[in-house]
Amino acid sequence: MSKKYVYLFSEGDASMRNTLGGKGANLAEMTKLGMPVPQGFTVSTEACTKYYEDGRKINDEIQKEIMENIVKMEEITGMKFGDKENPLLVSVRSGARASMPGMMDTILNLGLNEEVVETLSKKSGNPRWAWDCYRRFIQMYSDVVMEVGKKYFEQLIDEMKEKKGVTQDVELTADDLKELANQFKAEYKSKIGDDFPTDPKEQLMGAIKAVFRSWDNPRANVYRRDNDIPYSWGTAVNVQMMAFGNMGDTSGTGVAFTRNPATGEKALFGEFLMNAQGEDVVAGVRTPQPISQLKEVMPEVYDQFVKICDTLEKHYRDMQDMEFTIQDKKLYMLQTRNGKRTATAALKIACDLVDEGMISDKEAVLMIDPRNLDSLLHPQFDQAVLKKATPLAKALAASPGAACGKVVFTAEDAKAWADKGEKVVLVRLETSPEDIEGMKAAQGILTVRGGMTSHAAVVARGMGTCCVSGCSEINMDEENKKFELAGQTFHEGDEISIDGSTGNVYAGIIPTVEASIGGEFGRIMDWADKYRTMKVRTNADTPHDAAKAKELGAEGIGLCRTEHMFFEGDRIAAIREMICSDTVEQREAALAKLEPMQQGDFEKLYETMGEYGVTIRFLDPPLHEFVPTEEKDIELLAKTQGKTVEQIKAIIASLHEFNPMMGHRGCRLAVTYPEIAAMQTRAVIKAAINVSKKTGKKIVPEIMIPLVGEVKELKYVKDVVTSTADKVIADAGVELEYKVGTMIEIPRAALTADEIAKEAEFFSFGTNDLTQMTFGFSRDDAGKFLGAYYDKKIYENDPFAKLDQVGVGKLVKMAAELGKQTRPDIKLGICGEHGGDPSTVEFCHNVGLTYVSCSPFRVPIARLAAAQAAIKADAQK
Amino acid sequence: MSKKYVYLFSEGDASMRNTLGGKGANLAEMTKLGMPVPQGFTVSTEACTKYYEDGRKINDEIQKEIMENIVKMEEITGMKFGDKENPLLVSVRSGARASMPGMMDTILNLGLNEEVVETLSKKSGNPRWAWDCYRRFIQMYSDVVMEVGKKYFEQLIDEMKEKKGVTQDVELTADDLKELANQFKAEYKSKIGDDFPTDPKEQLMGAIKAVFRSWDNPRANVYRRDNDIPYSWGTAVNVQMMAFGNMGDTSGTGVAFTRNPATGEKALFGEFLMNAQGEDVVAGVRTPQPISQLKEVMPEVYDQFVKICDTLEKHYRDMQDMEFTIQDKKLYMLQTRNGKRTATAALKIACDLVDEGMISDKEAVLMIDPRNLDSLLHPQFDQAVLKKATPLAKALAASPGAACGKVVFTAEDAKAWADKGEKVVLVRLETSPEDIEGMKAAQGILTVRGGMTSHAAVVARGMGTCCVSGCSEINMDEENKKFELAGQTFHEGDEISIDGSTGNVYAGIIPTVEASIGGEFGRIMDWADKYRTMKVRTNADTPHDAAKAKELGAEGIGLCRTEHMFFEGDRIAAIREMICSDTVEQREAALAKLEPMQQGDFEKLYETMGEYGVTIRFLDPPLHEFVPTEEKDIELLAKTQGKTVEQIKAIIASLHEFNPMMGHRGCRLAVTYPEIAAMQTRAVIKAAINVSKKTGKKIVPEIMIPLVGEVKELKYVKDVVTSTADKVIADAGVELEYKVGTMIEIPRAALTADEIAKEAEFFSFGTNDLTQMTFGFSRDDAGKFLGAYYDKKIYENDPFAKLDQVGVGKLVKMAAELGKQTRPDIKLGICGEHGGDPSTVEFCHNVGLTYVSCSPFRVPIARLAAAQAAIKADAQK
Repeated sequence: MSKKYVYLFSEGDASMRNTLGGKGANLAEMTKLGMPVPQGFTVSTEACTKYYEDGRKINDEIQKEIMENIVKMEEITGMKFGDKENPLLVSVRSGARASMPGMMDTILNLGLNEEVVETLSKKSGNPRWAWDCYRRFIQMYSDVVMEVGKKYFEQLIDEMKEKKGVTQDVELTADDLKELANQFKAEYKSKIGDDFPTDPKEQLMGAIKAVFRSWDNPRANVYRRDNDIPYSWGTAVNVQMMAFGNMGDTSGTGVAFTRNPATGEKALFGEFLMNAQGEDVVAGVRTPQPISQLKEVMPEVYDQFVKICDTLEKHYRDMQDMEFTIQDKKLYMLQTRNGKRTATAALKIACDLVDEGMISDKEAVLMIDPRNLDSLLHPQFDQAVLKKATPLAKALAASPGAACGKVVFTAEDAKAWADKGEKVVLVRLETSPEDIEGMKAAQGILTVRGGMTSHAAVVARGMGTCCVSGCSEINMDEENKKFELAGQTFHEGDEISIDGSTGNVYAGIIPTVEASIGGEFGRIMDWADKYRTMKVRTNADTPHDAAKAKELGAEGIGLCRTEHMFFEGDRIAAIREMICSDTVEQREAALAKLEPMQQGDFEKLYETMGEYGVTIRFLDPPLHEFVPTEEKDIELLAKTQGKTVEQIKAIIASLHEFNPMMGHRGCRLAVTYPEIAAMQTRAVIKAAINVSKKTGKKIVPEIMIPLVGEVKELKYVKDVVTSTADKVIADAGVELEYKVGTMIEIPRAALTADEIAKEAEFFSFGTNDLTQMTFGFSRDDAGKFLGAYYDKKIYENDPFAKLDQVGVGKLVKMAAELGKQTRPDIKLGICGEHGGDPSTVEFCHNVGLTYVSCSPFRVPIARLAAAQAAIKADAQK
Repeated sequence: MSKKYVYLFSEGDASMRNTLGGKGANLAEMTKLGMPVPQGFTVSTEACTKYYEDGRKINDEIQKEIMENIVKMEEITGMKFGDKENPLLVSVRSGARASMPGMMDTILNLGLNEEVVETLSKKSGNPRWAWDCYRRFIQMYSDVVMEVGKKYFEQLIDEMKEKKGVTQDVELTADDLKELANQFKAEYKSKIGDDFPTDPKEQLMGAIKAVFRSWDNPRANVYRRDNDIPYSWGTAVNVQMMAFGNMGDTSGTGVAFTRNPATGEKALFGEFLMNAQGEDVVAGVRTPQPISQLKEVMPEVYDQFVKICDTLEKHYRDMQDMEFTIQDKKLYMLQTRNGKRTATAALKIACDLVDEGMISDKEAVLMIDPRNLDSLLHPQFDQAVLKKATPLAKALAASPGAACGKVVFTAEDAKAWADKGEKVVLVRLETSPEDIEGMKAAQGILTVRGGMTSHAAVVARGMGTCCVSGCSEINMDEENKKFELAGQTFHEGDEISIDGSTGNVYAGIIPTVEASIGGEFGRIMDWADKYRTMKVRTNADTPHDAAKAKELGAEGIGLCRTEHMFFEGDRIAAIREMICSDTVEQREAALAKLEPMQQGDFEKLYETMGEYGVTIRFLDPPLHEFVPTEEKDIELLAKTQGKTVEQIKAIIASLHEFNPMMGHRGCRLAVTYPEIAAMQTRAVIKAAINVSKKTGKKIVPEIMIPLVGEVKELKYVKDVVTSTADKVIADAGVELEYKVGTMIEIPRAALTADEIAKEAEFFSFGTNDLTQMTFGFSRDDAGKFLGAYYDKKIYENDPFAKLDQVGVGKLVKMAAELGKQTRPDIKLGICGEHGGDPSTVEFCHNVGLTYVSCSPFRVPIARLAAAQAAIKADAQK
């Protein structure tokens, strides 16, 4: 028997979502539940895949199967496709496995032609309705199937209304609509060259093809990328008998939620329009009425609907989002699905459902999309104002939250203006470590260059500051403190608003509202903590970030980047002094100045984190990141170093690297300058001794050596660390435990992890660098070609945001296994940007990591994702 | 029972080389053969390893075992250590598993002190000898064990000779020598602070320790790195009863080879000195006599020696290098080993041994070190002149051969001077693709920067031109056309000589002699071809290189880098035009200009290679490598492009990359600009059609897509290639087979090779990039820290010269296995610089590659190495 591609609604159920798509499966389920569903059939998602495999063609076999199911529909309904007596009209709607609202296309009233319209008109005694259906069909078909823009038809409607002196569509008469239908057909012919198709079969195949094709439209592709939906899934197509909401005043259509999708409140929520088809509700030409008013308009239908809502919610055990149509006082259900909701609503609904005894706390945990928590933790734009705003540009949503303020162009200005009490948005080509203070002072950060893991993005996420990055449409003139965007010029002090959750940039001020976390947040997090087995740590370099993360549930610091501590005031001077040293002694003298500062930093971190683990990564970036670039700074450095400007410039030039990402950095610095590692060790250990004494708590510092690729390299640096640490401990006459581990961020480290585990007490996967090396592209440069890779479906996700489980993940898995072979109790963590991505968290759980570490504001996301991973993995056992 | 660390000579044999070292094993073997060997014992290589493990100490257990064996020696010889009646004197000599001539230390006459010397003096009636031994011992012990420089003692000898009015050491009397010994001891005390040790046991342990320590001296470390000898092997120490060549005119010492080590001629070769110890032969204070003259001096001893030589050569079935001493007319053998020889001699000896029936052709193949073949294929310095020259500097031996000529500083000058008939050496900070013509015109190339795989090195090796790279001691002033090195200033036209086989740089002209390949070369190569199973291809971009490689035995082109074809005249103009295009159409127009040139290149390559496979790699480098850097070139480009200079500069700036190695290059170019791949495909296919027609040969072009990391990426480009190729073939109305494959040079490609093999018909491992990505360091930048890594024994080899089998090799093996899983007949090759390295060739054989590809002059090396790998693997079955 050949493969089955088409299913009657009566042949399916909710479990067949992968084959039938969400809409098709739920239509089948409602049919099974005996609800009033206009009958029809679903062309499966596999037919869609086949369509693409066959070079965008529906093959003869599937076409035949579709037509066989049309015959079955005809038998069920007693109507006939294209019939002059009792014609069957259908809707054709997309329906993917995952809900993608508004992303794909719909065609209503299919099966109409000049003859059928006349039949309907006569038979119903309602010619206005018949012609309204026809003109709608021509309009939708032209738009969706033939890609003639809607606007041409809307213009004809507007002209007609003007001519007739009316303002509402419903005021147009049957004759007006008939004339419009003719005008539409003429418009179609002028645009396409052929007559509008009259054969319902041709119409049907065109419509199905158009739905399949819409799976690949740009907005669907972007939506999928944003929502982790694989391109390979395809969409199903639902062909359903029409129910007509536009048959007069006893007909109507509407949408409703079983609970309020914005607040989660338990009350029917939605709206309807009488004498209308679905599109009218959305289009906003007429204002729909709240669903509660249906009680007055049609009490019986309302009661029936409320009952159905209740049944469906109990059946699906989740808030439902439904579409319905009333045809001549008879209610038809066109769709039900688990409703989209705001993060606030999601939390409330989940908690309420637990309290109502409808779901377990485990199910509540699984019900929340971790990615949505972000919006609860950051300020958002006032939705009322936002609705009316048009973005000037859309760039990368690099760090969530919303911000508005006056434009400044330098970190210094940001700080100066903020000190005067101004709210500012820092706009830069790209940020560098020197900009930290200004970034802290700004409400938000907007950069022209850089991706999701650029300096601006990483630092902003760490701070919880809103950031939009890579806005390449900006024409920047930093020197003159101005930029152009979308034809407008912005000078210092001009107002701007940016949305780090969407990447949108707006002119002017859009007011923001502060984040507020209700009690449900805590309940869900408690349940998550109950079920997760992985720990969640944070990436934090400052006591402020650490405290924030701890408040959000972090159980330690997984990555403290010590170099971020080196850019302030005296410190950068000392670092530069070290870089310009000629001898080990000079270097040690410069490092001696840094040591107490580093020690102070670590003391504050230990005090903040108490007995939670703190993993301190030793100096990682290439030294040229610390040298001055401005002439005046170079002159100053020359003076303090007792060298000539030329000598300083020669030192700076000697630090130049062709590929700094693959250069003299990480533990390579500690191999060439072991005195740096020794200084950092002393600071780490002395701080731990002091804080242990002061607080009476047991501090066990974790020293992490970055960029290791070979066990002997790690052993060399570890020997420096342990000999230094043991001396400090002995000198202090105390006992102190400490651990030495390494980042696994170079492919060779993963490949030889069994060897490396002989020296490393823990591994932390640095998946940013590991991704770069494994793919062989630099995150700073990949922007130039990743766009083409998305367009051409070579990559569906940004591998710097979502861990590439196939390639990079293979290395992670291999390293985890090899590490455990050598050292069964090895502690395994991840501290790349991926640590806060839910799909990566799940992967980490499945390969047996001990913890994930992420930026402070991602901690709740990781906690929830870790719980979901544990629950899912447990269910599969 | 505890581990055995010390073996009497009578306890060992030649098979115990790993434990006893080469010298110890052969002393044991000669003992077994009943030859006159002064008896003694060997402290094993494992004792050396233990010495380092124990923190450079000989532990009590081993010391005890050594002294037990001294007792056994005393029993055998009837003498006693430190005895006043019949004292035992010993030599202490190093002896590693692999011969490392002159790299480590030796001490003779150990066991002497004031009392013993008096005893010897009386007992022998030869006080001159006794005091000569003593003064030699003090001198050697001070130098080797206590690191007091030899020069202090030599100065004292010189002063004594002057005082006595003599010129030769042998003219000094017993009293003179006694006085010298006292002076030596005073010198020792003044330098060390303590008296010279008198206890023979203390002397012995000091000497053994010194030999162990010498394993780690800088020249040994460099020698090991150059000769692939692992640091972990350690050295053995041989403690042997002294035989005295300095006992008078019936005593003497010498070295000899069973065949001539320079030419391979079958005749005893060597020299001896009467009344001398070993060091005198080497030191050159007196001129030794040719070995043949021993026949006249001591006919019986000579006959005995000749017989022993013959026995040893037959026993070891290889040319032997021996040391002997005659003590009072009695011959003692102190060492035998397979002798070092020139490449010419190696070939002749191997062939002769086969002809003499002593070894098989397989053994002859195994006998030649493939690395030595290099010197046969390139000009060498006249050895007589070279001997007297002192190098100004030693840098990297980047491309073998020797060259001398006048210094020029630019590629243009190189060409201009060469056109005038001058021989020139091109000296540059570093070379770039624009320098190709000048590099061709030069006799040799010397660069200040860059490693073994820098542009200069790679291109020079490809051309077979001598190159010394990374000579960082040069103080370069390119602008004023001069440089300083070792205190001398060189201007344009000054004479210089460079040796690309050693990395040495000399002032002035050292004449060169042309390479000459004898008939033995061909015989060995024929035998190699008989046994090898891997094919050997070449990396060649020009018909000239391809022809040379074919002459040297290449069986195809494994890598033709098409971008190297783009730098000449019109071509670079067309490439720049393409880069500056605004639209696809403009790009296609520019590419259309390149197409016939590319096609012409390929036609010539096919004509040269006949039916051998030619693998053409599509455009790989980032586009910024092609843009002009000079203001005048930018202006010219602006003019031809009808753009402003600012616009051109903006385009150039937009191509800037932070990490070009990981940037927009390789197949990423073909994904963003598929028209480039289409043009190259047309050129490849049209050329193949034309040459097939013209020559009647079957040309099967192989198109190779670089830098693939994901199968969908390869599929996208492959689709462009096949649709273009199939159209060209159909248009031409011919049949033509072609293959599409990929480089495996990105870790992710290796990790997902099963997927990639679905699209790739062949893999070629690009181990240069694969090494960079796997280690996470760029070959251009690694120079800054690799020195420290060698010093600290983290790496023992340059991973860009010798494949890292542990890490990178794991990926190669994994990819080979995964590729074969998907496509059992997949063709697997390697085309990185490693393809010509013998140890890598062996690895490639063992993981089942189909072929290796290397630069033309390395083809014979690869053929031989492949044969050796096959023979070895076969023997292990």
